[in-house]
Amino acid sequence: MEVKVLQNILSANDQLAARNRQLLNQKRVFTVNIMSSPGAGKTSLILHTIKGLKDKVKIAVIEGDVASSLDAEKVTAYGGRAVQINTDGGCHLDANMLVSALDNLPLDDIELLLIENVGNLICPAEFALGEHKKVMLLSLPEGDDKPYKYPLMFTIADAVVINKLDLLPYLDFDIEGFCRTVKGLNQRAEIFRVSCKTGEGVESWLSWLWNELKNYNSI
Amino acid sequence: MEVKVLQNILSANDQLAARNRQLLNQKRVFTVNIMSSPGAGKTSLILHTIKGLKDKVKIAVIEGDVASSLDAEKVTAYGGRAVQINTDGGCHLDANMLVSALDNLPLDDIELLLIENVGNLICPAEFALGEHKKVMLLSLPEGDDKPYKYPLMFTIADAVVINKLDLLPYLDFDIEGFCRTVKGLNQRAEIFRVSCKTGEGVESWLSWLWNELKNYNSI
Repeated sequence: MEVKVLQNILSANDQLAARNRQLLNQKRVFTVNIMSSPGAGKTSLILHTIKGLKDKVKIAVIEGDVASSLDAEKVTAYGGRAVQINTDGGCHLDANMLVSALDNLPLDDIELLLIENVGNLICPAEFALGEHKKVMLLSLPEGDDKPYKYPLMFTIADAVVINKLDLLPYLDFDIEGFCRTVKGLNQRAEIFRVSCKTGEGVESWLSWLWNELKNYNSI
Repeated sequence: MEVKVLQNILSANDQLAARNRQLLNQKRVFTVNIMSSPGAGKTSLILHTIKGLKDKVKIAVIEGDVASSLDAEKVTAYGGRAVQINTDGGCHLDANMLVSALDNLPLDDIELLLIENVGNLICPAEFALGEHKKVMLLSLPEGDDKPYKYPLMFTIADAVVINKLDLLPYLDFDIEGFCRTVKGLNQRAEIFRVSCKTGEGVESWLSWLWNELKNYNSI
C-alpha cells in the first residue's frame, strides 16, 4: 500500500513537472537541476557559473534547503537573483515546490535558471522538476565507490562534475576508475573535473553549459 | 493528506522501534545507529571500532545501503559479523527493516551492535530504529555550515564525530566555531575529532563508546 501511495505521488509529480517544463519552454528559460551530497560544492559551482556567464545571459537561481537561507544569501551577495525554497525537513525538491518558486520569478527576464536541489544523493534523483538538464556533483573526499552505492543519481545525470580536485593529492581516489564506472552506468554523461576553490577546470564546465544553452535556444 | 500519511508512518515506525528496543534490552545488545552524508567515513569508523573493541566485546554490524553490499563485504573482510539491508532506493533505514535484520542475527551472541545507516543527513534523523545511541559523523570537507542546514541531525545526536581531520590544513573549516554551533543546537552532544585515515583521535571515540556500553550493562 505504501508503494501505491508513492506511485501516485510520483505520477502526480511527473504531471506537474511536465507543466513546469511547458511554462519554461514558453518563456525560453533553460533550466538546470543541480544535485549532490551535502557540502559537495553546488553553491560554489553556481557562484562560478554566475561569474562566468552573467555578462552573456540573464541568470536566476532557486535554492532548495531543508532549513536556512544561507545559500540564497550567498547568491544574492554575489549579485545573483535568488529564490529560496525551504522544504521544512523534506529531503528533495519536487515539481510542486518548483511551481511556487516559478511564480516568484520574473520568467520573461530570465534565460538561464539554476536549481540547487537539497543536499542528498538519493531522492532528488527520483523527482523530475521540469528541468532541461540534470547535473550531479561528486566531491573527491566522498570516495570513488559512490556510483556503486547511489547508482540512480549517476544514471540519470546529463553531466557529472567531479569537484574538489585540489584535494586529490591527499586522498585515495582512483579518478580514471571512477570515470569508467560512471560511463558504465551512463554512457551519455559528460564528465568534468574541477576545483571550485582554485577555479581549475571550471572553464570546460562553463563551455558545456553555454553550448547546451545555445542548442536549446536554436531549437 | 500527505502529512497525515507521513504521521501514520512515523507513529507505526515508533511502535516498531520500541519493540526492537525491548528485544535488544532483553538480549542485552547495546545498539548504536551511525549516520552521516555519503562518504563521510561511517564504514571506516566502524572498522576502527571493530579493531579497537573486538577483543573485549562481541560485535555485529548492520549495513544499510540503497544498493550494493560493498560495506558489508569490508566488515566481513575485517573479521566482523555483518548483515546487509538494501533499501532498494529508500533514503533511510526504518524500524521495520531492522526487524528483519535482527531476525538474521544471533542476538544471544552479540553485545555491541553497530548500525550503519544510509548515507543521508536528512531522513535517517527522523526514523528511530530502537537504538540506544545515535551518532553522526561530519567530515571536514562537507563544510562548517552543515548544522545550520541540517539542524535535526545535529539536534538528535548523542555524539558528533568530526572525521577527516587530516584534511584540515587544506580546507577553510572553522572547527571551534563548528563545535560552538553544535553545542548551541544540542548541549548534551559529545564531540570527537578524528581521522579514520591516520587513526588520530579514534582512541577517545572508543573510550566513550566503551563507557556507554559499560553504563548500559550496569543498569
